[in-house]
Amino acid sequence: MTTPESTGVTVLGLGAMGSALAAALLDAGHATTVWNRAPARATALSARGAAAPSGIADAVTAHPLVVACLLDHASMHETLDPVLGRMRGSTLVNLTTTTPNEARELAAWADRHGVRYLDGAIMATPPMIGTSDASILYSGPREVFDDVRPVLDRWATSTYDGADPGLASLFDLAMLSGMYTMFAGFLHGAAMAGSAGMTATEFAARATPFLSAMTAGFAHDAAVVDGGDYTVAGQQSLDFSDLSHIVRASEEQGVDPAPVAAVQALISAQIAQGHGAEAFARIYESLRARAEVTR
Amino acid sequence: MTTPESTGVTVLGLGAMGSALAAALLDAGHATTVWNRAPARATALSARGAAAPSGIADAVTAHPLVVACLLDHASMHETLDPVLGRMRGSTLVNLTTTTPNEARELAAWADRHGVRYLDGAIMATPPMIGTSDASILYSGPREVFDDVRPVLDRWATSTYDGADPGLASLFDLAMLSGMYTMFAGFLHGAAMAGSAGMTATEFAARATPFLSAMTAGFAHDAAVVDGGDYTVAGQQSLDFSDLSHIVRASEEQGVDPAPVAAVQALISAQIAQGHGAEAFARIYESLRARAEVTR
Repeated sequence: MTTPESTGVTVLGLGAMGSALAAALLDAGHATTVWNRAPARATALSARGAAAPSGIADAVTAHPLVVACLLDHASMHETLDPVLGRMRGSTLVNLTTTTPNEARELAAWADRHGVRYLDGAIMATPPMIGTSDASILYSGPREVFDDVRPVLDRWATSTYDGADPGLASLFDLAMLSGMYTMFAGFLHGAAMAGSAGMTATEFAARATPFLSAMTAGFAHDAAVVDGGDYTVAGQQSLDFSDLSHIVRASEEQGVDPAPVAAVQALISAQIAQGHGAEAFARIYESLRARAEVTR
Repeated sequence: MTTPESTGVTVLGLGAMGSALAAALLDAGHATTVWNRAPARATALSARGAAAPSGIADAVTAHPLVVACLLDHASMHETLDPVLGRMRGSTLVNLTTTTPNEARELAAWADRHGVRYLDGAIMATPPMIGTSDASILYSGPREVFDDVRPVLDRWATSTYDGADPGLASLFDLAMLSGMYTMFAGFLHGAAMAGSAGMTATEFAARATPFLSAMTAGFAHDAAVVDGGDYTVAGQQSLDFSDLSHIVRASEEQGVDPAPVAAVQALISAQIAQGHGAEAFARIYESLRARAEVTR
């Protein structure tokens, strides 16, 4: 790359996120080519100066840097299998949501065609793109990340997670798993409070500061997990953390206990294995991979 | 009640929490009587000035205010059934963990014996008792709460939740449901990151600020739930929130997807009912009580 603005970029996929990525590039002065399966999605960007060829082959050969933001892993193959052979020497930054193994498969597929591949996972909503609130994780060859970084930094805070192309997806999905599970727990609590007439808004006013403060406890549980000794003194035990009374109370109130029942099942499994006197964090042992599996 | 210090209090149950409650009363100058099924637990408090009769009848008749902090609902009956008839006119503050329905049963049981009953739910660990970090929720007759409040305030910030004696337990369990579910989500994310060699401590350093910031979204989801219209524009749809790729990634990494799979099941149920274009908060409709059930 020479000066950042001189870098031309092709963006494939013009959903809300792909359109936001392309708009941020246009704002920064990059020559930008866009393509979408349904061409109407390109109209607004085209009016702002983007090139919008109708053929995918013209799009992927317009610039040596191609960014994909498609629906899923299958869309990547459907869209690029016919033209990947014409991209030799180009760089493909894939921001399409995939599993880690799917990202690894795409990296190998690109490599077989002589295309440099960087995988990315966007931790932002489309309106956040181009602001300091947006974060994007990347994984793949370090030199590819460094080379295209001036472009990546147009969108978000760029974090490099490692050479294994599956890592960005893995860390993103790990964070999202925590987030969606937390929201489900909140909505379950709101449903319990709601069964006695409290509004969800009233419950949120209590739960937001409480759960926010409790996130400070993650570091403590993490240290116990990393230390591997769940018998540490001063811990709240699994016997004490038994949630069967919450499950029972939920059922008594007519509220589906599913989110908390899933946690209780993990606790019960560890108690049944004789670990009732150990710390709550021991449920990690029910969840964790039996061995490190990275590919 | 006259001046707070003149109020004598009996504390039943001297586990870590009961002992902390009694110690805070002694610190504040209250005449304090303690009782525990296994009398050895009373030794330290006795040395600090607490009366420690061996018989439960002597304990519950020593003062007109009796606080119970026992193991569970069954312990309440086992301990007090033989002596409740001698407590007519007394006030019983029950801080034993129960379900809302169990609290309601105990309130009716006390009422049949002419005993005033206030239910409480402690949101604190024993070392927090007597500090500003501790919070205790109460429910039952307002006049009973107001009458004993000078004593209650020795322990924590006292919040009155309403006349239904089940409310304190219900709101406590609703908050704990959110908390334990959030921790399970965190540990699941840590297990996913750990499958690629990241330590739980490294994951916590990323997840703590992220999840803490995301709790700000509860109010938004709550407003959607209270409004009852999940089609609000600008919401992330259930189709978009589909977590099947997280479940699949978890399985591919050898990590048990149980916590996030429980959330995905709620999402799938709403999509199957034709609500895929509506907001994520719609999973509330799978959880909520079909009608308000408060007793």
